[in-house]
Amino acid sequence: MSELISKWKELADIKDELAARDWFMGTSGNLSIKAGSDPLQFLVTASGKDKRKRTSEDFLLVDGDGVPVGETRLKPSAETLLHCAVYGKTQAGCSLHVHTVANNVISELYGDKGVVEFQGQELIKAFDTWEEDALLSIPIIYNHADIPKLADTFAEHISADKGAVLIRNHGITVWGRSGFEAKKLLEACEFLFQYKITLLQTKPFL
Amino acid sequence: MSELISKWKELADIKDELAARDWFMGTSGNLSIKAGSDPLQFLVTASGKDKRKRTSEDFLLVDGDGVPVGETRLKPSAETLLHCAVYGKTQAGCSLHVHTVANNVISELYGDKGVVEFQGQELIKAFDTWEEDALLSIPIIYNHADIPKLADTFAEHISADKGAVLIRNHGITVWGRSGFEAKKLLEACEFLFQYKITLLQTKPFL
Amino acid sequence: MSELISKWKELADIKDELAARDWFMGTSGNLSIKAGSDPLQFLVTASGKDKRKRTSEDFLLVDGDGVPVGETRLKPSAETLLHCAVYGKTQAGCSLHVHTVANNVISELYGDKGVVEFQGQELIKAFDTWEEDALLSIPIIYNHADIPKLADTFAEHISADKGAVLIRNHGITVWGRSGFEAKKLLEACEFLFQYKITLLQTKPFL
Amino acid sequence: MSELISKWKELADIKDELAARDWFMGTSGNLSIKAGSDPLQFLVTASGKDKRKRTSEDFLLVDGDGVPVGETRLKPSAETLLHCAVYGKTQAGCSLHVHTVANNVISELYGDKGVVEFQGQELIKAFDTWEEDALLSIPIIYNHADIPKLADTFAEHISADKGAVLIRNHGITVWGRSGFEAKKLLEACEFLFQYKITLLQTKPFL
Repeated sequence: MSELISKWKELADIKDELAARDWFMGTSGNLSIKAGSDPLQFLVTASGKDKRKRTSEDFLLVDGDGVPVGETRLKPSAETLLHCAVYGKTQAGCSLHVHTVANNVISELYGDKGVVEFQGQELIKAFDTWEEDALLSIPIIYNHADIPKLADTFAEHISADKGAVLIRNHGITVWGRSGFEAKKLLEACEFLFQYKITLLQTKPFL
Repeated sequence: MSELISKWKELADIKDELAARDWFMGTSGNLSIKAGSDPLQFLVTASGKDKRKRTSEDFLLVDGDGVPVGETRLKPSAETLLHCAVYGKTQAGCSLHVHTVANNVISELYGDKGVVEFQGQELIKAFDTWEEDALLSIPIIYNHADIPKLADTFAEHISADKGAVLIRNHGITVWGRSGFEAKKLLEACEFLFQYKITLLQTKPFL
Repeated sequence: MSELISKWKELADIKDELAARDWFMGTSGNLSIKAGSDPLQFLVTASGKDKRKRTSEDFLLVDGDGVPVGETRLKPSAETLLHCAVYGKTQAGCSLHVHTVANNVISELYGDKGVVEFQGQELIKAFDTWEEDALLSIPIIYNHADIPKLADTFAEHISADKGAVLIRNHGITVWGRSGFEAKKLLEACEFLFQYKITLLQTKPFL
Repeated sequence: MSELISKWKELADIKDELAARDWFMGTSGNLSIKAGSDPLQFLVTASGKDKRKRTSEDFLLVDGDGVPVGETRLKPSAETLLHCAVYGKTQAGCSLHVHTVANNVISELYGDKGVVEFQGQELIKAFDTWEEDALLSIPIIYNHADIPKLADTFAEHISADKGAVLIRNHGITVWGRSGFEAKKLLEACEFLFQYKITLLQTKPFL
């Protein structure tokens, strides 16, 4: 049980940090952290909560299908199936989905292309790519209103224990082996998106 | 009375949160929360206060016409009539008016058109529109210096228990069934405005 | 003496608030508050301090010529003469000088014209101009490296108990009858500058 | 020993301040402070830590070659050699390396030119250049993935006890005689970079 409490606290700390950056505007976003492998269980944000507050009802435990474990009046986030896809296909320990202005704008700018790429940026090393000419590709998928369909499309792009996928005009989902790694990747992506937007806006006028 | 204290605290918490984002620049903005229906009474921000401070004189109770209930040396916000319009025409529980750079710029960019529209953005679901091709329309009204005239023009656009109206170069007013919902809509609008501005600034250079 | 302590606290609170917004980057900026009229004395920021910290050496008392009152090892801010000009020519109670990216950019964009103007913006009412077509003009002066010369040029634009002057690529100075009013005007100017910059960057692409 | 504790606290305070501005996105950045001259020793950030947290394992003591002093399970930052170069060639007391969107964008915009220049900006006085027409030049070097090679290239641009060097798409390193001065220069550079970017984005549309 103390393992569960420790995971709860880890996720609550991440939530506080992202909330302080205003990355849950309009009650958007949802987060999860793996709590056990056999059977697969994870903590996920409850639906309809104010993520800037820290309460005992912020998360609930669900199984690998996203069904609540035990009696609860809480409802898991409507997008829990995307977290199921992450834990079902990889050894990831944490999955974070947030909306920022920059990640939404990038998802629209490069949405038709289906991918946004970064090269020659120091920050891409957050993804453990250390070669001088390494290329970071982040896929951009269509934002199906139907969540199971969205989760299926999303799952096609999950192939490693860490990664990132943009949903067009619907934020980003990143996952990593730990909460620390997932947060690191989320920050690196946000930095790269803001960088690309600012460079696009400035370069023509140099 | 404890209901009134609870409503006061709810509005004070919202004020703190918006103040932390610097959404009351130059002492702009005003907020209200419904305190009773029969007769209609609501708490509204007192005029001329520093909204970054939390004091016992931040709000005062007024009736459906915006007249203070009981003796007080406090003056209700000069724009209290707009809050009267919200509570007089709907079952809303909270109304928030704030200036941000993004909402002022959007109100000017689309002011001649009289409306700004959003489609295909996940965040518009904050307004409970769930269809994949849903359209969110936010009206933009003329900023009459005469407050009763401004309130009348504003009232023409109030038709549901939640909504949002931009006043040209004079911020936004949003309202919802609760303080939580009003804040959610305010954040969703701000996100959408920042998104549209950033996209406009970037897309031509892709 | 308690009056002096009260003024000290008022200025320290303003300093904390502006520091939290990062409006003293690179140790720039200086602040003052009037402590007495007969003879004229005011508290002004000491030179070379970290304005994000709150200490007993943040301010020192100076006379109408900017000369320290009594023994002190503190040096008044190098730009104290500009504050002397404000208190010497008006009944103002507080004067604030800060650098922001927006105020520096506006001062450069409109520097050749010598003035930046705002009309039709609700926020200009912070300057007590209530007519629907009121015009707010903020002069922009040349940034003389010689401080007495800069102070003389600045003084030519001081004609009321509240006002604002931009120094080209050298931030803004605002003053008001009280600390509260000076802060209100500073915030209103910053809002208007950010608004104008964002509108300029966006409007051509609508 | 108390000197070492005092230096530790000074660097931890600087780290807190920069972390609050989100200048360590994706666990980027590294900081150091000189702890002794004979022999040369300095505290440097340990590798792989969350810089938003304050712990007893945030820094470790290394010698002039960047080798840990005494037994420790901590690893010095991968870029410690750049700090060695600063202390080896100057009397600097503190060296700070951070990524911001603005400093990365400027490093790319002016990367081919190898230098970015500022003139006529008040903020360049942070570098103790007081003439009215003073010119501030910040070199931009190639981002070699090989750290010893990067450190060598970096060292060619170190010639005074304070300074700043941009690494293309890899942030900025500034150093100064004290932690206070290094932080002042870092802030001044960030301000100047944001100013130049905003001016470039706005001026063509005036």
